[in-house]
Amino acid sequence: MTEGSGGTIGVGMVGHAFMGAVHSHAWRSAHRFFDLPVVPHLAVLGGRDLGRTKAAAAKFGWASVQTDWRELVNSPDVQVVDICTPGDSHCEIAIAALAAGKHVLCEKPLANTVAEAEKMAAAAADASANGVRSMVAFNYRRVPAIAFARKLIEDGRIGTVRHVRAVYLQDWLSDESAPMTWRLRKDKAGSGSLGDLGAHIVDATQYLVGDLLTGVTAVTNTFVHKRPTEGGGDLDDVTVDDAALFLGRFAGGALASYEATRFALGRKNGMRVEINGSLGSLAFDFESMNELSFYDGSDGEAAGFRRILVTEPTHPYVGAWWPPGHLLGYEHTFTHEVVDFVRAIADGTDPAPSFADGLQVQRVLEAVEQSANQGSVWTDIPTGGLS
Amino acid sequence: MTEGSGGTIGVGMVGHAFMGAVHSHAWRSAHRFFDLPVVPHLAVLGGRDLGRTKAAAAKFGWASVQTDWRELVNSPDVQVVDICTPGDSHCEIAIAALAAGKHVLCEKPLANTVAEAEKMAAAAADASANGVRSMVAFNYRRVPAIAFARKLIEDGRIGTVRHVRAVYLQDWLSDESAPMTWRLRKDKAGSGSLGDLGAHIVDATQYLVGDLLTGVTAVTNTFVHKRPTEGGGDLDDVTVDDAALFLGRFAGGALASYEATRFALGRKNGMRVEINGSLGSLAFDFESMNELSFYDGSDGEAAGFRRILVTEPTHPYVGAWWPPGHLLGYEHTFTHEVVDFVRAIADGTDPAPSFADGLQVQRVLEAVEQSANQGSVWTDIPTGGLS
Amino acid sequence: MTEGSGGTIGVGMVGHAFMGAVHSHAWRSAHRFFDLPVVPHLAVLGGRDLGRTKAAAAKFGWASVQTDWRELVNSPDVQVVDICTPGDSHCEIAIAALAAGKHVLCEKPLANTVAEAEKMAAAAADASANGVRSMVAFNYRRVPAIAFARKLIEDGRIGTVRHVRAVYLQDWLSDESAPMTWRLRKDKAGSGSLGDLGAHIVDATQYLVGDLLTGVTAVTNTFVHKRPTEGGGDLDDVTVDDAALFLGRFAGGALASYEATRFALGRKNGMRVEINGSLGSLAFDFESMNELSFYDGSDGEAAGFRRILVTEPTHPYVGAWWPPGHLLGYEHTFTHEVVDFVRAIADGTDPAPSFADGLQVQRVLEAVEQSANQGSVWTDIPTGGLS
Amino acid sequence: MTEGSGGTIGVGMVGHAFMGAVHSHAWRSAHRFFDLPVVPHLAVLGGRDLGRTKAAAAKFGWASVQTDWRELVNSPDVQVVDICTPGDSHCEIAIAALAAGKHVLCEKPLANTVAEAEKMAAAAADASANGVRSMVAFNYRRVPAIAFARKLIEDGRIGTVRHVRAVYLQDWLSDESAPMTWRLRKDKAGSGSLGDLGAHIVDATQYLVGDLLTGVTAVTNTFVHKRPTEGGGDLDDVTVDDAALFLGRFAGGALASYEATRFALGRKNGMRVEINGSLGSLAFDFESMNELSFYDGSDGEAAGFRRILVTEPTHPYVGAWWPPGHLLGYEHTFTHEVVDFVRAIADGTDPAPSFADGLQVQRVLEAVEQSANQGSVWTDIPTGGLS
Repeated sequence: MTEGSGGTIGVGMVGHAFMGAVHSHAWRSAHRFFDLPVVPHLAVLGGRDLGRTKAAAAKFGWASVQTDWRELVNSPDVQVVDICTPGDSHCEIAIAALAAGKHVLCEKPLANTVAEAEKMAAAAADASANGVRSMVAFNYRRVPAIAFARKLIEDGRIGTVRHVRAVYLQDWLSDESAPMTWRLRKDKAGSGSLGDLGAHIVDATQYLVGDLLTGVTAVTNTFVHKRPTEGGGDLDDVTVDDAALFLGRFAGGALASYEATRFALGRKNGMRVEINGSLGSLAFDFESMNELSFYDGSDGEAAGFRRILVTEPTHPYVGAWWPPGHLLGYEHTFTHEVVDFVRAIADGTDPAPSFADGLQVQRVLEAVEQSANQGSVWTDIPTGGLS
Repeated sequence: MTEGSGGTIGVGMVGHAFMGAVHSHAWRSAHRFFDLPVVPHLAVLGGRDLGRTKAAAAKFGWASVQTDWRELVNSPDVQVVDICTPGDSHCEIAIAALAAGKHVLCEKPLANTVAEAEKMAAAAADASANGVRSMVAFNYRRVPAIAFARKLIEDGRIGTVRHVRAVYLQDWLSDESAPMTWRLRKDKAGSGSLGDLGAHIVDATQYLVGDLLTGVTAVTNTFVHKRPTEGGGDLDDVTVDDAALFLGRFAGGALASYEATRFALGRKNGMRVEINGSLGSLAFDFESMNELSFYDGSDGEAAGFRRILVTEPTHPYVGAWWPPGHLLGYEHTFTHEVVDFVRAIADGTDPAPSFADGLQVQRVLEAVEQSANQGSVWTDIPTGGLS
Repeated sequence: MTEGSGGTIGVGMVGHAFMGAVHSHAWRSAHRFFDLPVVPHLAVLGGRDLGRTKAAAAKFGWASVQTDWRELVNSPDVQVVDICTPGDSHCEIAIAALAAGKHVLCEKPLANTVAEAEKMAAAAADASANGVRSMVAFNYRRVPAIAFARKLIEDGRIGTVRHVRAVYLQDWLSDESAPMTWRLRKDKAGSGSLGDLGAHIVDATQYLVGDLLTGVTAVTNTFVHKRPTEGGGDLDDVTVDDAALFLGRFAGGALASYEATRFALGRKNGMRVEINGSLGSLAFDFESMNELSFYDGSDGEAAGFRRILVTEPTHPYVGAWWPPGHLLGYEHTFTHEVVDFVRAIADGTDPAPSFADGLQVQRVLEAVEQSANQGSVWTDIPTGGLS
Repeated sequence: MTEGSGGTIGVGMVGHAFMGAVHSHAWRSAHRFFDLPVVPHLAVLGGRDLGRTKAAAAKFGWASVQTDWRELVNSPDVQVVDICTPGDSHCEIAIAALAAGKHVLCEKPLANTVAEAEKMAAAAADASANGVRSMVAFNYRRVPAIAFARKLIEDGRIGTVRHVRAVYLQDWLSDESAPMTWRLRKDKAGSGSLGDLGAHIVDATQYLVGDLLTGVTAVTNTFVHKRPTEGGGDLDDVTVDDAALFLGRFAGGALASYEATRFALGRKNGMRVEINGSLGSLAFDFESMNELSFYDGSDGEAAGFRRILVTEPTHPYVGAWWPPGHLLGYEHTFTHEVVDFVRAIADGTDPAPSFADGLQVQRVLEAVEQSANQGSVWTDIPTGGLS
């Protein structure tokens, strides 16, 4: 069996920085708002530094700590492993956890390379056959407005999709004196804005359209090549892209445009998606994440983009929260993620997005890098089975 | 001493409906994000029906239950009493709790009448002299955007205030077949939209401007006089206002306009405030609660209302949460309320808004009702000491 | 017959300031975009100062000038008299023109007092019996978005109207050193923001709702009592209101709120109207005058305020202009006014808004002043026949 | 000398469809609002069909007609030739007009090919040496908000430009049954959305940034290959692109993204530009053409995108029009164009955008087509002198 004793399920989480904080909140809170078949137990928090891990465990509410992730993965108290580390360690931890029969929730991007992602997807497929579940944490699928947009598209409300335009705009590197972070080191992060931000909009648009990108042409750029090291002092090399722009085509014929950057001054978390179909259109901006814009071509002379406040009890996930017009925030998306993951585990079904979905995003990112490195030449994206 | 043992403070909460759910979340979560001098312990949940109270306690995370609020108030496990009941019981519970030496957080409006509110404010003043704290739960003061707006006004960024316009627009009664609730019964709720919604915008504007209303002229209306009883079936009398509109003057000379209604179809939680000063202006809409609009008259030909995303670490309360552009939601305002209340208790200071502030709001509401009942004649609002 | 020779109709306009400039444009341009039964001929421009009037005539394209408005009114070249003077001269000029058998277009407000407005309405009624037409220039009825909103209401799309909230916010007096103008002298302008701005929102809302206000309670204020005279130097007395706020009830039961001010810093021409009905809602802001917001309650879970760009060929007046999405501006409303007026003259029908409509607005303004002067007491507005 | 007799300048315009209507308005109206050194005289209207040209001349106010554009160009009544025909005839007419010593205003795109554009630019350079002026009609430079944005950038308010993103979204071809038009025939229009819409955003962004694109990678698409002929009935071939997307780099290092389409359902004239610099950012949407969004990084914790209503008398072109907050529309941009062109003629200076600027846009369009036809490979854009 996959659950812990007494109607609970033990969680072991590796990493306790930004993602660790928000995942902890989700594991703590999900059953307070949603009816869950089993209640998550925050069993073990993993981190490299004992002191800092203990402090984080106390703050976030974890029952114990571990500095060796292999011990955490193999702990009998742990039925679910939640990976919140930088991308360079995802592959090793996830495959070990799956091998140990533990369900795995892995932060995005799934891995730093397609090769790693393929191994992970293969391991996840094997594990699934044994009832072990895995999911990649593209939390934006759990924004109620995005889930509702997906429903409108599935219901045919916008017809055939012709245009997709997605940007993810931040500005925290716009200041040239902003210091280094692991997110600017290729060996840790795999890529820069591309994997951090671009991965989100690739997954979100493929999810929304219900279709896959087949090829891209791309341009990337690093605006600032040296930055002060984290502690101040010397300059260190930025080894990733600051911005990545690419155009693509979906299998179904839609044209798509993407931009990911941390240099869009004034845009704090501007993950925006617009989709134009033959019958209607949709628009979303994460800076107004409780709203969805929907144009229904059948509204005739009274047609206009509807600003839908996605806070009604009938909207996805919203019934568990507050009355209409009372907004949800960023962390709610992670709570929803935990809810769906726990339910899938209990139901014995594979949750989405799967590691295979995460692999497919990785293939897009790799094609973007290839195109950018080869004069922007059109670069096909392989789909289908694992290599 | 006012704290519980072991660095915790015991909380007893009366009521477990909508407000009870959101207050529970705040008590559970405050110390996970903020550094608190003492950690709230969810000791006792009070409710009239044992079975439903037990279910709520399990869901919300309370250690025990009580069906007699007097037992809860006097429990040695309880150092703080949180009152989440309809307005008709606020006075009795609060006064008993203060008399028992318990700190009191009371939902708004403070009471159903000025007479009750005066008793409560007097009791709170007495208790304060003994180190017992009390606060009325006007949570909108803890929206970061509103707290930031207050700071801009205090800093003189908009100069002398000339105009205040505030509306609180909902639409859940717009459907004539929507059923009865205690909120539509005068004996329970005191008033309708006036006390439920109007109280919020009166408190928020008096807080923002840093000044008090001195008089009003008002109009109220009940659009639908009979509604199906809660369980369906027979019709029952609506005995409160469906909408209340009033104009007022602040002591400092500003003109003000207010509207509270549950019949503004399409407006889900449209608590909007605009303030025009001699140097600048501000605008806020709770449906976009992470944003503040600010017009700085000194911007010259490049002046325009600035859409400030109030999600920077330097903004009030925000440093405890997520990076810029990652939104907060409705329940965060209650978490902030708990943080400020617990800190005041530990610091030995009186938190705001006080019961005296709550009384002053009640005086405005009563003046509105008087004016509406007397041909809208201008009605002065008493200020100053307790009667 | 009422037309001039050769398929033209002679126009004589009195006044050549702001309103004169925009009316001139309308008279010049209407037949260039719309098919008119007769073409306006800009025959005579009237002004008190010969030199300035000649200069204006040359600039605006008038064939001749007159410094005596009685000569203009009686000129055989003039079939239409367009009154663009301050309110204190409207009554005398309009009555003389109607007596001379000339069609009259009169700027708003119709007059400075109800007594004058009644005389004008009576004269217009008499003239109409003789085929002489008159119209008051509430140009905002000719904003395509407002005309389209009226259509939606007439078609029942928002059901029974429950709430009307209208503000007209400007800021050109916010600076205390802004100089005097005739608009701040009671003997010239009749009132301040009330007649200048309030008149527009009273007319627009009565037109949109298709109903009349029956009573009001009001507050007015003058923030700055002395200002530099037009030429600079000495201070002069401001003898009108700087702001006027009032609440009202429509005959059909709707509650209404109004605010007119020139002290809302940052709002340049913020004429905003919101209307909530039992089936839908509408919102409009003149600062985005090509847009109408419409909430259709029947849209279910996909309901939201639709931002309708009122630039489609099927929208009122728009077919004469540009393709969808190509905006119209302020002066187009006057062109539409001329088009409707000329067509009514040719068709032998009475155009709207009539002088009787203008009188009814004047009655509202007078009730507002009475209420404000009498402790905001509720003040009924007479309707029905002329006294 | 270049002017006509009596302080007027004679204009001959070829073409009287959409562009002809709006240009006629501009020629008629410019001197009514602006002080011009010479007054345009609408001397000759050229069109292929005598009857339709006469009707248009009567409607638009032209003194005479010509069915042979060579006669028009050589008419002694004509000092300015305004070319409003489809792109395939621009080159021949413009070169003939310049050869005849006539100033030329030519609609955009300048030509259908780079080869033609080069001939035109060479002819314009020669003519300029003889005091004959020419300008290409990129009217969006004369939107006050865009001209003001240019000023802010010139003044250094946004620092070094890093990102440009521009889209031009329309939806009039979204309906697959929409009929053919010359704009869908390559021989007439040169290209589809690329030349019609893309040309505008290429020119506008190069103008705003004050820099040139150096290369692009592109994707184009035709969604609907056959449409009913204009008169109905048979299907005809669409021979141009329905959508064109491209990425580019500016000489100064900025990354740029472009999309032009007529299939973005719900977007009527969504010409949007966003520019992010090191100190500030700008955003503009033609559907709200009186507004400019400006983020000033120096605003600190009170920073936010300012919604500047570009209607102040100090803003470009606005002083000639109405008070603040009174909007301008689409046709005003053409009026401003005429004003600047006439003033340049009178001043003896070369107006912008020049034919050389138009040629440079054409080179970008050609590079886009080349890249799209060659697997999106990066394609350099030649700059500098004429070949």
